[in-house]
This record gives sequence, C-alpha cells and structure tokens, in this order.
Amino acid sequence: MRPRRRESQPADLGTVALRDRLASGALKAAELAEICLGRIEEREADVGAWAWLDAEYVRAQAKHLDAHRASGRPIGPLHGLPVGIKDIIDTARIPTENGCRLDAGRVPLKDAYVVERLRQAGAIIMGKTVTTELAFMHPGGTRNPHNLAHTPGGSSSGSAAAVADGMVPLAVGTQSGGSVIRPASFCGIAGFKPTFGAIPRRGVLMQSQSLDTVGVFARDPEGAALIAEVLFGHDPADAATSLAPSPRLVETTRAAPPLAPVFALVKPPGWEEADPQLHAAFAELAAALGEQVFEVSLPAVFAEAAPQRARINHAEMSRNYYRYGRDGADVLGARTRDAIETGNGISARDYLAALDWRNVLNAGLEEISRRCDAILCPAAPGPAPEGLGSTGDSIFNGLWTLCGTPAVTVPILTAENGLPMGVQLVAARGEDARLLRTANWLFRWADPSDPDGSMT
Amino acid sequence: MRPRRRESQPADLGTVALRDRLASGALKAAELAEICLGRIEEREADVGAWAWLDAEYVRAQAKHLDAHRASGRPIGPLHGLPVGIKDIIDTARIPTENGCRLDAGRVPLKDAYVVERLRQAGAIIMGKTVTTELAFMHPGGTRNPHNLAHTPGGSSSGSAAAVADGMVPLAVGTQSGGSVIRPASFCGIAGFKPTFGAIPRRGVLMQSQSLDTVGVFARDPEGAALIAEVLFGHDPADAATSLAPSPRLVETTRAAPPLAPVFALVKPPGWEEADPQLHAAFAELAAALGEQVFEVSLPAVFAEAAPQRARINHAEMSRNYYRYGRDGADVLGARTRDAIETGNGISARDYLAALDWRNVLNAGLEEISRRCDAILCPAAPGPAPEGLGSTGDSIFNGLWTLCGTPAVTVPILTAENGLPMGVQLVAARGEDARLLRTANWLFRWADPSDPDGSMT
Repeated sequence: MRPRRRESQPADLGTVALRDRLASGALKAAELAEICLGRIEEREADVGAWAWLDAEYVRAQAKHLDAHRASGRPIGPLHGLPVGIKDIIDTARIPTENGCRLDAGRVPLKDAYVVERLRQAGAIIMGKTVTTELAFMHPGGTRNPHNLAHTPGGSSSGSAAAVADGMVPLAVGTQSGGSVIRPASFCGIAGFKPTFGAIPRRGVLMQSQSLDTVGVFARDPEGAALIAEVLFGHDPADAATSLAPSPRLVETTRAAPPLAPVFALVKPPGWEEADPQLHAAFAELAAALGEQVFEVSLPAVFAEAAPQRARINHAEMSRNYYRYGRDGADVLGARTRDAIETGNGISARDYLAALDWRNVLNAGLEEISRRCDAILCPAAPGPAPEGLGSTGDSIFNGLWTLCGTPAVTVPILTAENGLPMGVQLVAARGEDARLLRTANWLFRWADPSDPDGSMT
Repeated sequence: MRPRRRESQPADLGTVALRDRLASGALKAAELAEICLGRIEEREADVGAWAWLDAEYVRAQAKHLDAHRASGRPIGPLHGLPVGIKDIIDTARIPTENGCRLDAGRVPLKDAYVVERLRQAGAIIMGKTVTTELAFMHPGGTRNPHNLAHTPGGSSSGSAAAVADGMVPLAVGTQSGGSVIRPASFCGIAGFKPTFGAIPRRGVLMQSQSLDTVGVFARDPEGAALIAEVLFGHDPADAATSLAPSPRLVETTRAAPPLAPVFALVKPPGWEEADPQLHAAFAELAAALGEQVFEVSLPAVFAEAAPQRARINHAEMSRNYYRYGRDGADVLGARTRDAIETGNGISARDYLAALDWRNVLNAGLEEISRRCDAILCPAAPGPAPEGLGSTGDSIFNGLWTLCGTPAVTVPILTAENGLPMGVQLVAARGEDARLLRTANWLFRWADPSDPDGSMT
C-alpha cells in the first residue's frame, strides 16, 4: 500500500483548470452540464447520490450562464461549475426534505446563504444530494462509487459520492461530527471543513448550533479552496460568523509554501482500534515525509473530546429536533430517536460544562499548532466499511468539529481492497488558507504524475 | 408628585463639565480626589458603598495624572475622574471578592477589560464597590443615601449609592436581571445598560453568559455616555462582542434631537402590581409630554420574558457557580443557594428553548421601535422599599436584559417620601447612542433650572 495517483475523472482536469476553461469560453457551461448529466444518467441508479435532480433546471441555468458570458458581462468565480447541494440546505422553490419522511414535500421559499452565494458566483445548482436522516446517522441509501457494496460515509453521503463519481466537480455538505471529512475520505476526494463560523448557516437545517459546520467537496484541495472562498463570509443571522475579513483561499492554496511544510503526526483516541492497514499506511507516509514529520501526543484532555462532543450534539438535537421526536416515533430511524431521547436527559449544567471543553482543548492544541504547518492524522479508521447499514465511525472527526479547527482530507492512500483512505490535516482556528496550502502541497507531493510533485 | 430638579451634588457640575475642568487644568485630579475622599470619609460609615478603598492608592493615581498632564502629554477622555468598580470586576493586585465569603482574600493578577480601558482613559480607580453576593439577590449591606433605612437596590448596590452620594462621579456595574437600572432608579441617578455585547466582559465574574451586561452609573445621561464610550469595544475573549465599530456616544448624546423625541409608553407585565404612586407619576409624565407620547401594548409573548429569563439565569448559574454551590452550603445566602439548586434541575432542552425567546421578543419589539425614539416605562415598581433584607424587584428590568436591548434610567421623578424614581427608556439593540440622546433630552426637559430645558 502506498500513496496513489489521483483517479481519472470524466473531465480529467483539476478543478481550477476546469474553471479556467469555462471562464475562457473554451468550454461552455452547457457542455459541462451535459457531461455531468450524462454521468448521472449512467450511474445514478447504482450510486443513488441525488435526492432531487431535474435536467431541465440544470440546462436552463447553463443556457443563461452561457448567454451571460456571451454578452460580455463579468462572470463569477464559479462560472458554469455544477455544484451538488446537500438536501438539508434550503433551495428556493426546490424540495429540501432533510432526508426525513416528516419533511417530504417541503419546499423552502428562500435560498440558504450558501446557495445565494453560489448563484451569485455563477455556479450551476445541480440538484440536491442525499443526506442521512436529518444529517444524523441513519443512512440515506447512497452507495460508494468505488465499490457499491460499501458505504460512502455520511451524513453528506450524496455530496461526496457525486463528486467522487464525476457527476459534479463540486458539492456542499455539513459536519456536526464527521459528516464532511469521513465521506470525503471514504470516497477518495478532498473534503474541507473550515473553521467553525467561517461559512454562514442561514437556511441550513440546524442540528447542533455549536457544532454544525458547512463544508465542501472537490476532487482536489484547490477545488475546495475555490468553492470555499465564495462561501466564507458574515451573516447577521448566524451568530457564529464574524465581521473579520475572509481569507484569500485560492491564491494562498495555489502558492508554493515558503518552506517545505512540517507535519505533526498525532494518533488521536481510537487510533489503536483503527484498521491495521491504516497503521501501516501512516507509518509508510511518515517514513516518506522523513524530516518533515514529527510525532506528538495529543494532550490527555482529548480523551474528553468524544463524550463532550456527543453531549453537546445530543442536547442541542433534543431542542432542535423536538418536533421530529414528538411527531416521528414511527418514522425516524432508531439512531435518530435514541439521540433525541439521550439529549432529553441532559441537564443544562452538563451541557454548558461540555461547551467549555472547546476552549480547554484548543488551549491544549496551541503548542502543537505553533510547531507545525498542520496536524496530520487519519480521516477515518480505515477504508469505507462494507454494507449500507452504517455510515462508519467518526471517531477521528468529532474532536476537530468540537474544537472548531479547520480540517481537510487529502485523498492519497489506498487500501488493499482498492478503496481510498484520506489523510486528514488540521490547523488552528482561522488558519484555513495556510491549511489548504499545506493540503495542496501534500496532494501534489503524493502524485507522481504531477510535474511539480515528487514522491521524495 | 411631579418631575423634580436634579439633586445638588458636592461638585455641583454636570459630568462633562467636570471632565472639562479637569482637562483644562482648572481642577486638579488631586483636588477632585480629595473632595471625593472627604465625602467618603464623612458618609461611608452610614452608606457602606465600598468593599475596598485605599486613600493612598487614590492619591497616587491622582498625583501621577496631574504630573502627566503637567508634562504636556495627551490626556485621556476621563482624565482625573474617579470611578467606582463593582467588586465582581477584577482589578490587578486589588482584592476582588465577588461579595462572597468563599472569595475572601481573592486578589486577581490582571485587570478586567473595562478596568484596563478606564486606566488608559485617565480615570482614577477609586476602589471596589459593594455587590450583592455573587451579583445575585443576597444583599451586601449598602444603604440608600437618600434614606438609610431603605435599600439602594442591587446587585450593583455600592456603585449606585456611591455616585448618588457624591462619593464618585462615575461607577461601573453589571446587570443580569435588573442590577444596573434598578439601583440607579432607587438612588436617583442615571444608569445605562447598553446593548448586550457592547462592553466586553473579560475579567468580570460570569454569572450568566447570555445575560450579563456591563453598565455604568453617573449623575446625568451625558456622564453615562462619557464613561460608556470608553468601555464599548471588541474583545476576542468575549464572544458576545463584535468587531463592529463603536458608536460616538458622547457627541450624539449631547446633540439636540433633530425632532422632538417620540416615546412609546408601555406597561410591561407587573405594571398592575406596581406602586400606585408610580401609576400616578407616569400618568402625569405622559400628560406633560403630550403629543410626544403614545401608549402601546407589548406583544402578548412578553408574558414569557420573566420565566424564560429566570430559566436562563438559573441554568447558567448552576454551571458558573458550581464551585460556590458545592463548597458554600454553610456560607451562601439562601437566595443564591436556591437559584443554583433550581438551575441544577433545568434540562438542556428547556434552557436552549429559553434562549430562543430572545429573538421572538425582539421581533415583537420591531414594530414599536420603528415608531418611536424610545420605549418609556418604569425602571422599578416604585421608590426603594424600606429595609435592607431585599434589593427590590427587577420585574421591569429582566425583560430588557433578556432582549439585550439598551436601557437607561433617567432620575426625574420623586415619590411622596422624597425617594427618587427613575424613568426607563429602551431602544432596539444597537441604538445606544440615539437612546442616550433621547435620555439626555428627557433629563434636561424635566429640569426647570436648565436654561435649555423646559417643562412643556
């Protein structure tokens, strides 16, 4: 097992190169839309990535964008790029059913903040991607495009699978536990969960206001930067967002690091129980990175991360999903019901105490973050497990979601069964741009076909 | 009973005039410090406003400030003005005992944000003022300077009494229920509780992170603006604060309103049970304001304000005062103990539901706020009650604390027993400057000795 080459994709281009072809007119939005629709036509019956899709809706947007470009007016930074939208994110006049039968037929009147921004940036809203039930753990039926017998991960199952399968170059998801990084790892693409609060959540189903983070999927870190830069911002409706200026993600991500990046390899709680293949792959990766990597232990307080994150998640779910719990006894999956029930039993005092762990954990990270460009750790305990009854284990994701630190998974490892495994990089809150630059460095370093990359 | 003249004060000047004399050198910081120390010497045994005071510490600051001014260097906006600091606000190397025997002898290493700002502005840190136990309801022993048999209100008891008695021109307090507005009303001074989050709380005892608001006391609204402008700001350590620019409070407060202000008289829940003298005084005030006032009902949802605010306060106390509850069984006052105990029984779900009422209530205020310069309502159900066993009822304050709206009390009414009663003005969040301008207009309007004021 060794770092592997990128999979070939329908349009075998990096996301930025694809964007540049659209911007130059070498590729029409309508042409790319047809390529994507064709791929979906071919594969959707197997993969099941889409909760709602209307080819005519896509074609109408593409036609409009091509006409707009032809008129000579300025185009947006995502001009013509189709984007999949997780079906817990509101889209005006398009069903948004939250993966829950109780919301069947729900059609919002307004776009979520992120959908507004995507439209303004010239993206094509391709359709709604399958989510687990209410973005929790009950699977939605999507399959892993690399092996249909395996889960794609969740809760942003359809977003990850659609990008991995070449149905769209970009997609949006959310993470409250491990719902961006894990499916991206299982599906062999780049997934980016920015700093908590970086992307406004207006119009996104609220599961857990202290954890919910909008994230993005692309085939490469540059693609993640491209879409994330459009989505970063401030919205008065989301108190987690701030008026601070947004970073220039694309420019930074594409720049060469001034020095070869240094990685802090950490083995978070759960490491011992992970797949032995993963242990071997990380040993090889560390050996290949040589002096650029040093191993460091997470502070002992990180043993608290998983239970405290779960406490916050369950308590906030018990409030936010009160209606679902009340009306959904016969409808909701057992995991969703159990989580709401668990949340009902949590006291305000314990909940507030759990929130305080965020600062404790981040303080514990400070010394590590100062010494490296990124923390390097697994994105998941192994490749996507077989079966569709579970979306896998988020043990390596929840701690970073709780901390609110940016995390990105880079698709550079392959298990013996051919399924991808991601390498997760994590940085201090606010260091999103530098983290993406480091991720891009690692992505290219691991790709022997990249003229600028090298294996050592 | 009718609107009354301002009380005469030791230095019979408005706060801004006093500041101007200090700035011009007509009054030395050391001279004013001695006047204040003299007044304290004379009255402290009766009033009991101070938890910690050291005349030499005051004189050293005054001497340093006079030397600084004499050197020709720029002076701060509060140059030479003595300020009382509620004893739940940390002061470096000066005891900060939180009104609680469990914290006897506690000496912080660092100044709170507000103390840092006051020092930078050239204020004299006069000493620490008496607070109720942990800024909750168990009284601290301070007496009302207008009648020593009556409570000064609380929890910022010493801050209000010290300003009212002429011991200091300015003081800082905090409000989680009615702890700024009520004591200011009982003591016959101006009290200002700004928009939630306007003043950073780093270094202030945290009782209830969703309610705690730093506020200020002065003899007049201009004085409140003067000190508040120095304290408004952003601090990364306080997530409630924002990067938005701070308003120019002093300039706005002193400006004449472009049109005669319009007041929306509201009778909040509790109005019927208030002192009949208060009903009469408000009827007279409304008659005197004539067409400048219209009466409006608060939306019915405001019946929820008091119970929901209490739920938030108790739940957050149960977390923040966990240590006091655990160690203080034999030490804490019964009201404090009971509140912590009540908080222990609140579920996370109910607590989170209570937080959501803030937006519901503010939405209900929108239509009223659009139609007036300020909501006009009582600051307390009557004059300060007799006895020191209770600090009075915060029924007319807690709703605005929950909403996070700015509130100011203007000392323009007098009860039959000679005790003052405040008129509370409230505006939409963020409208602090305009609110203070309206308060200043009302203050001058009610004062027949003011050449610019008039009674109708």
